[in-house]
Amino acid sequence: MAEQSEPRRFVPAERFPVDLPATGALMPGDSVGARRFMTVTDGRPFALEGGGRLQEITVAYETWGHLNSDASNAVLICHALTGDSHAAGPISSGHPSVGWWDDLIGPGRAIDTEEFFVVCSNVLGGCQGTTGPASVDPETGHHYGSSFPQVTVRDMVRTQKLLGDRLGIGRWRSVVGGSMGGMQVLEWGAMYPRRVASLIPLATTAAASAMQIAWSAVGRLSIVTDPGFRGGDYYDSPDGEGPWQGLMLGREIAQVTYRSAEIFDDRFGRAHHDPRREFHPWGRFEIESYLDHHGQKLVRRFDANSYLVVSKSMDLHDLGRGRGGVVAALRRLRMPVTTVSISSDTLYPPCQQAEIHDEVTAGGGSCRYEVIESPQGHDGFLLESEPMAPLITKALEEAGN
Amino acid sequence: MAEQSEPRRFVPAERFPVDLPATGALMPGDSVGARRFMTVTDGRPFALEGGGRLQEITVAYETWGHLNSDASNAVLICHALTGDSHAAGPISSGHPSVGWWDDLIGPGRAIDTEEFFVVCSNVLGGCQGTTGPASVDPETGHHYGSSFPQVTVRDMVRTQKLLGDRLGIGRWRSVVGGSMGGMQVLEWGAMYPRRVASLIPLATTAAASAMQIAWSAVGRLSIVTDPGFRGGDYYDSPDGEGPWQGLMLGREIAQVTYRSAEIFDDRFGRAHHDPRREFHPWGRFEIESYLDHHGQKLVRRFDANSYLVVSKSMDLHDLGRGRGGVVAALRRLRMPVTTVSISSDTLYPPCQQAEIHDEVTAGGGSCRYEVIESPQGHDGFLLESEPMAPLITKALEEAGN
Repeated sequence: MAEQSEPRRFVPAERFPVDLPATGALMPGDSVGARRFMTVTDGRPFALEGGGRLQEITVAYETWGHLNSDASNAVLICHALTGDSHAAGPISSGHPSVGWWDDLIGPGRAIDTEEFFVVCSNVLGGCQGTTGPASVDPETGHHYGSSFPQVTVRDMVRTQKLLGDRLGIGRWRSVVGGSMGGMQVLEWGAMYPRRVASLIPLATTAAASAMQIAWSAVGRLSIVTDPGFRGGDYYDSPDGEGPWQGLMLGREIAQVTYRSAEIFDDRFGRAHHDPRREFHPWGRFEIESYLDHHGQKLVRRFDANSYLVVSKSMDLHDLGRGRGGVVAALRRLRMPVTTVSISSDTLYPPCQQAEIHDEVTAGGGSCRYEVIESPQGHDGFLLESEPMAPLITKALEEAGN
Repeated sequence: MAEQSEPRRFVPAERFPVDLPATGALMPGDSVGARRFMTVTDGRPFALEGGGRLQEITVAYETWGHLNSDASNAVLICHALTGDSHAAGPISSGHPSVGWWDDLIGPGRAIDTEEFFVVCSNVLGGCQGTTGPASVDPETGHHYGSSFPQVTVRDMVRTQKLLGDRLGIGRWRSVVGGSMGGMQVLEWGAMYPRRVASLIPLATTAAASAMQIAWSAVGRLSIVTDPGFRGGDYYDSPDGEGPWQGLMLGREIAQVTYRSAEIFDDRFGRAHHDPRREFHPWGRFEIESYLDHHGQKLVRRFDANSYLVVSKSMDLHDLGRGRGGVVAALRRLRMPVTTVSISSDTLYPPCQQAEIHDEVTAGGGSCRYEVIESPQGHDGFLLESEPMAPLITKALEEAGN
């Protein structure tokens, strides 16, 4: 360790600006880049499931295709923990990457934008345009920071429902999403059964397991114990300090859980990033360099408080809460459900999607269950678009019958 | 988050004193509590595999039973990452817990101390009496800290071999260990084939995989990016600061990988630690409280620099290094091998122990392979003593024939 070259605390040279319009400053249809913004609250505070409230909520969303005359062709896409409204489309203002499901959404693709009106909104508590901890609280004129209340997946879904109301969508042809997106999908089925014709929950669970909570918890712990966190009020820190290192570490932990041993062995094996430092304490293997890259990349585009709030909402996800338990809630679903597993997913293991299938059908509902054989791990729901496409196409076709 | 009750950085109220005798200050046979100490270097520096050197090495060890007249009944126990020489026996000075394998070692137990002379030593780089980063460098009179060189599993085994020489043990009846202990077992077979009659490597691997490196790496990152780490030279920090929070977090991450989703679901499920704060950002689930407990417990008894050095040695473990690869190294083993998997072990998955079996037998060697069906995860090698006992008994019996 003599060379004093141990890993330094990461401070990003650049963070992509998050376009967070001041709540209330927008008119419906205002847009920044591909995103549009809608204030979905109606002058009354939005009461949250957990007891808090938000004075106003702005939702950032994107749409593709055209709503037909009887508003029967709308499909809602729900994103995962660090996703956003940019499900499809090229790099644009505020979007450093192409859409996270670009292979599946577009003209002639599985979610065909020549047939469907596709909507994706950033979740409540997020940091890509929808009201979240980095937003300015209209009651104080300052960033919410530590005062932002805990939200739940149900709060996210209620927000999406208000957006759908304003877009004139009485009933979604389908609500589709993976991971945390799939949690929203299931809640749509339970909360608004008459407002959705079919559900496509992918690589998700009816209730977060203790293991899933454990992984979220260590990720949050890395953020809140970073001295730069300042209790959540780091937006205006005089020295520009923030919990960058903690967020980076949290992401690295998560990244390991998103993939599989097989894919890591194939891609990295035991290769050294700097072979001349093989036996040096800070010499990194390729896998370490890969993780650092992913950690640093997230810090540039994501807000640590949003990470805390949204990951906690996943832990709080329990379709059975107040509904007599998960089994009862699943057995009550009556719209057709298509659920898909990735065979190597250890974070949201296939048994969780099998449970969705088993209980929906046990309740007399209709559920198709498919397993995609893939070494990609949990990220397979994002990466395995080729085998995923026909499953989604079929589910959307059946929903229209 | 308004209540300002976010998790605080952990500072232990008490840390168990680590009895680290000054190197060279001991005579062979000196003891503290149950431990004895031996300076195994002979006035010449110990050259490490990675290129560094140590002026002197003291080894802390414990023994049970009596060495027979022809020194043919000695069994060496190798411990895992945060283990130590206290493999068996009650709580005693410097040992806040009973022996980590107490169920398996003792009179009439699987490793029968009425029949065998059992030895367990703390690994090189550790912090429970064997020379490590917290030791005083005889050349400077100060703690090694950041100047402690990186050691490898092979260095640990060479140290154990020197200890065996001094104890008069020409050939071990068997070398036994799980996880990192199993790495040492395999290196014994490759480095000193005439000095060991049989190998019992449990829940281990012939070479660390990319996934195993990934988990070690995020654990180390949590320590070195803790501002209390001070580059590794925190022993004499004027304010008593140290990387306690980082070590706690590293342990929590590791603890998740040591268990299984099934055991977490069974023990904790979705139970809240403080049900009145269910929707509060800092309200913890039971699983979070469990992880915090384990993290804090380790900080009280273990040194962060040792954690770094020893976990890195596991990443560097590659039985095939300089031996034409793992397959060739395994096929060369000629002493009988017994390897055991825990069915639910995702950190050291059964395929790694199956590989040991397959290659040893492909090379014409003798290998017994058993799988213990258990939900305990990787920790099963410590916890499943009941099914483990007859497997070890049988292996030791066969080694004596």
